[in-house]
Amino acid sequence: MISVGVAGLGYWGPNLVRNVSASSRTALCWLCDPGLERLQAIGRQHPGVRQTTQFEEMLADERLDAVVIATPVATHHQMAKSALLARKHVLVEKPLAASVAEAAELVALADYTERVLLVDHIFLYSPAVEKMAELVRAGEVGEILFFDSVRINLGIFRHDVSVLWDLAPHDLSIIDHLIGREPESVMAIGASRTVDCLEDVVYLHLDYGNGLLASLHLNWLSPVKVRHFLAGGSRRSLLYNDLDASDRLKVYDRGVDVSANPSAVHDILISYRSGNVVSPKLDPTEPAFRLVEHFADCIERRVAPISGGEQGLRIVRVLDAAQTSLARASERVRL
Amino acid sequence: MISVGVAGLGYWGPNLVRNVSASSRTALCWLCDPGLERLQAIGRQHPGVRQTTQFEEMLADERLDAVVIATPVATHHQMAKSALLARKHVLVEKPLAASVAEAAELVALADYTERVLLVDHIFLYSPAVEKMAELVRAGEVGEILFFDSVRINLGIFRHDVSVLWDLAPHDLSIIDHLIGREPESVMAIGASRTVDCLEDVVYLHLDYGNGLLASLHLNWLSPVKVRHFLAGGSRRSLLYNDLDASDRLKVYDRGVDVSANPSAVHDILISYRSGNVVSPKLDPTEPAFRLVEHFADCIERRVAPISGGEQGLRIVRVLDAAQTSLARASERVRL
Amino acid sequence: MISVGVAGLGYWGPNLVRNVSASSRTALCWLCDPGLERLQAIGRQHPGVRQTTQFEEMLADERLDAVVIATPVATHHQMAKSALLARKHVLVEKPLAASVAEAAELVALADYTERVLLVDHIFLYSPAVEKMAELVRAGEVGEILFFDSVRINLGIFRHDVSVLWDLAPHDLSIIDHLIGREPESVMAIGASRTVDCLEDVVYLHLDYGNGLLASLHLNWLSPVKVRHFLAGGSRRSLLYNDLDASDRLKVYDRGVDVSANPSAVHDILISYRSGNVVSPKLDPTEPAFRLVEHFADCIERRVAPISGGEQGLRIVRVLDAAQTSLARASERVRL
Amino acid sequence: MISVGVAGLGYWGPNLVRNVSASSRTALCWLCDPGLERLQAIGRQHPGVRQTTQFEEMLADERLDAVVIATPVATHHQMAKSALLARKHVLVEKPLAASVAEAAELVALADYTERVLLVDHIFLYSPAVEKMAELVRAGEVGEILFFDSVRINLGIFRHDVSVLWDLAPHDLSIIDHLIGREPESVMAIGASRTVDCLEDVVYLHLDYGNGLLASLHLNWLSPVKVRHFLAGGSRRSLLYNDLDASDRLKVYDRGVDVSANPSAVHDILISYRSGNVVSPKLDPTEPAFRLVEHFADCIERRVAPISGGEQGLRIVRVLDAAQTSLARASERVRL
Repeated sequence: MISVGVAGLGYWGPNLVRNVSASSRTALCWLCDPGLERLQAIGRQHPGVRQTTQFEEMLADERLDAVVIATPVATHHQMAKSALLARKHVLVEKPLAASVAEAAELVALADYTERVLLVDHIFLYSPAVEKMAELVRAGEVGEILFFDSVRINLGIFRHDVSVLWDLAPHDLSIIDHLIGREPESVMAIGASRTVDCLEDVVYLHLDYGNGLLASLHLNWLSPVKVRHFLAGGSRRSLLYNDLDASDRLKVYDRGVDVSANPSAVHDILISYRSGNVVSPKLDPTEPAFRLVEHFADCIERRVAPISGGEQGLRIVRVLDAAQTSLARASERVRL
Repeated sequence: MISVGVAGLGYWGPNLVRNVSASSRTALCWLCDPGLERLQAIGRQHPGVRQTTQFEEMLADERLDAVVIATPVATHHQMAKSALLARKHVLVEKPLAASVAEAAELVALADYTERVLLVDHIFLYSPAVEKMAELVRAGEVGEILFFDSVRINLGIFRHDVSVLWDLAPHDLSIIDHLIGREPESVMAIGASRTVDCLEDVVYLHLDYGNGLLASLHLNWLSPVKVRHFLAGGSRRSLLYNDLDASDRLKVYDRGVDVSANPSAVHDILISYRSGNVVSPKLDPTEPAFRLVEHFADCIERRVAPISGGEQGLRIVRVLDAAQTSLARASERVRL
Repeated sequence: MISVGVAGLGYWGPNLVRNVSASSRTALCWLCDPGLERLQAIGRQHPGVRQTTQFEEMLADERLDAVVIATPVATHHQMAKSALLARKHVLVEKPLAASVAEAAELVALADYTERVLLVDHIFLYSPAVEKMAELVRAGEVGEILFFDSVRINLGIFRHDVSVLWDLAPHDLSIIDHLIGREPESVMAIGASRTVDCLEDVVYLHLDYGNGLLASLHLNWLSPVKVRHFLAGGSRRSLLYNDLDASDRLKVYDRGVDVSANPSAVHDILISYRSGNVVSPKLDPTEPAFRLVEHFADCIERRVAPISGGEQGLRIVRVLDAAQTSLARASERVRL
Repeated sequence: MISVGVAGLGYWGPNLVRNVSASSRTALCWLCDPGLERLQAIGRQHPGVRQTTQFEEMLADERLDAVVIATPVATHHQMAKSALLARKHVLVEKPLAASVAEAAELVALADYTERVLLVDHIFLYSPAVEKMAELVRAGEVGEILFFDSVRINLGIFRHDVSVLWDLAPHDLSIIDHLIGREPESVMAIGASRTVDCLEDVVYLHLDYGNGLLASLHLNWLSPVKVRHFLAGGSRRSLLYNDLDASDRLKVYDRGVDVSANPSAVHDILISYRSGNVVSPKLDPTEPAFRLVEHFADCIERRVAPISGGEQGLRIVRVLDAAQTSLARASERVRL
């Protein structure tokens, strides 16, 4: 069993605590949070687990194999660095770090210390995204024509980062996973309607080359919650709606055929194929449980990480470019 | 009764034919289409109505009071101009014309000939938009924080115009109607994934000043049809989903309050007000019927047009700026 | 072309008028309604079509081949009888007649006069029901385990018949079409919450033998509109939701397997197969148009009617038994 | 703090374990389940909590104040009886017991021992049902015209009881809570399509007098999950859809007015009021947490139980009558 300590017991941390506790491959050994009240509240549900407000105290435990870091973004770099130097495997909340330099340092350090550095790009562990990746790789989708994601709600407000740094990593990691390449350029349009300095509405446009555009709408001010990730393909299109519990993924056998017609000069011949819609059966296992199991696989079986530090770095690079675009009145920024 | 001739019997024209025929204030007197087969097919359902493939023949009828022009965009200017010069009132399909110069000439000509020039910005005649305007004007929405519209589907393909010129007039006219002012600048991101020259996916970002952004996603390649028009306000938010027949308009009594907290240096205090959701009762009358009745009101009672030539011109000006932005690699274009 | 007259221009009649007018195989020649205002309103849209308030005047037209009867149920028998005796083919609104004796007489008369007698069981002409029948016949559904239909709304109120006679024919005809046999017994539970004599809420339970039950919930007092027709099968299950324009029919590859396990005495072994969901592509043609074309096929090509008088009689027999059950405090009534 | 032991760690028990553990008013002290593996699996997440496979061992702990019984229905009576005799407060899973005699004995015993006997009619602790009760009591709904509930899915299969005893307690307790009276008679229609002896599809019709009918559709074989509880009222109607996370409760300001019109002999004048729809804001607290807190209130503050033994007995009485109706070919059974 891998001995695990979890640092950061805010919104997401307790989910990881629960899954580390539930997995037969990991043993929850430490809980860490600077807030004593929160620490004790969670701790009360895990009586045998050691508690601390000092991250360093946890790291000092030589029997501890791995740490989960679910703290504010600004602290990721320092904490993950300390943990790696203490020779712990690290699972860190997204985004990996607050800057490209920080992220790159962590990647190098994980490499040097030969420790696992996994980023919690949680959606990569959802069976719907796994199925999407399978369909894309098998050629079922054909050429991807565009990505469009709407990720909006009146939800939890982060005080430490903008909606860009909070929500975009979800979509950026899904796209990275599906097509395995970085965008060539980024444009971001944003507004801060509630607080001066942090964007709460952001539109991100990414150009992946060869005409492939991805567009993300990220919004904390919407009265409705929407989670629509759409991949339009030349053969099939995919709609991943995380809020539709019964049909989370829909595969549309619809598309557009374009054909040249030599006899018609003025007409553009486009015919629509409108076909069946299939909702594939998906494994109901909770993604966070699958993430924890994958973390164990990376540590024990040296499985290549699905969302390792390199991917984490790529995502931070895009976020950084998007932030630059926002600062430059939405100018296009090349990566 | 106002004697009306309808020119253009493609996709939308027959709806106007039906409503002109159904209204007790208008008499359908002429049908005009260059396609003889189509003309006869529609004509067969309206036995007493005169048919012609020549628009000029229809205009020559002195007893004809008004014409409806539902032809390709490129023809709007020439046909509307001829009709106004023949002293007919004109209801023209959106967009008013293919260029700012053409649109401006039509506005001037309508003024000079003292004829009604109405643009078929059909959504302004939907009871949902009417209700939205009423709520905005009554201050129920508070300050508008953002507009976001998703208007996507795998639908009818226009061969004459891009998805921008085809679909954006709907949202642009709704926003124009709600806030009564033009955007200061426009950015457009687009792609042609099926045909070289015409965009089939466009994102339009409009800056209306004072931090108010509007974003439109227009797409002909989506496997799903979505019609979401969202207006986020400081007091209430509005969601107009034209595809939800039972709850077409939802009014969310949810919002965000920002308050300064002197004792907390680092915390930004944001509290969510999450309240009731109301779907107001809406008149079930078909918008196209209300449009035809409004056209009659403009002609007979000199009612000020809801979607007159001036609004049509404003919309064309925005489309033109967006087209320029597309041509300049999504550069911001000021109006 | 078949010359057709339509009698009854209330709620449904105008739809049939429109489709008779639109089909190239039928010519709309007469309109008939006792209400002069309504007659003229519809007539105004069909200028060359003769109008009458007297059904007999229409029947006297020797050039008239067929009549469509969309009048109140109480009049069906007398009008259809006159029409058949005048040697007209007849398409009559559901239910065929107000009693078993009346319905049986019409079937006999159609047989004797060698005229087509078609009942407007409109849902049999919807592509979704056609697809369901295809799947059932191909064995894709396996053994049908149950039918359940919910057909409720706050809609048009019939003054002439109860919700049973108004709505049940839809579901009864679909089931008749799918399994081709009559129920063995019927139980009906009902209530009149608005008017003393006519039920506005009815639950109908039909026993088709071999354990196959069908249950219908028919309700005019529901604030929400629901149209769910569910056929649970041993291999697949079908859900026909007429209000879901994008996924009208869903085919669930889910089912229940029961297996005997000799080693387990107390356990009943049931395993769920949870599989894909498919929404088959459906022809978008309006059912009423397909009905009119089928009527033409029956007349001109002697095609066997999908919803002929015999089926109409079977449906009336079930309605009559259900009415008896209602009168006898929901007692089971055998057919 | 109230010291609590939980017996039964199958499907539902772990939810109660989690909430007993989370509440600051209850201390989880014992876990009990005959299955050692399951006991240890849950126990691993609650390290300090004592574990036993013997219910009597847990009861023998004098410091234990209360027990939660989430075991198969057949065991409820014996276990609750032992617990009450051991002077423990009891929270028992629904239904209270497997027969009227058993349920009545428990009620009497709780009274005699002056212990709290609470039945886990979980939906009474959902904010949606609380809001419904509030609206009914305030007269906002007017006269209730009918109840209709659809509670169907392809879900967990109980081996110990039929779908009637498993699912009907939910709706019966909601109705009991809303109108506070028992039905006068019950009719049940059912089928066992997978296993010979246990119904997996049941329709339950309850007559509450004065024309008020309630109908429940309970089904384990449906491919789709539906949770629709509809209360039609003369002033407003309520739709509680537990699966719609954003609009769980909808209040329809729609109804039917019947008015006598002296001048019209044959016409029944019914006018529809189609008005606004409101989704009231609801407290997001998990019902099981509220249940545990209410259990603590009953014990510590002698608050009258919302779902006490008397209600549990009333529900069992209806289930028993329904079972009799099933055994007598759906005959009406009076209570």
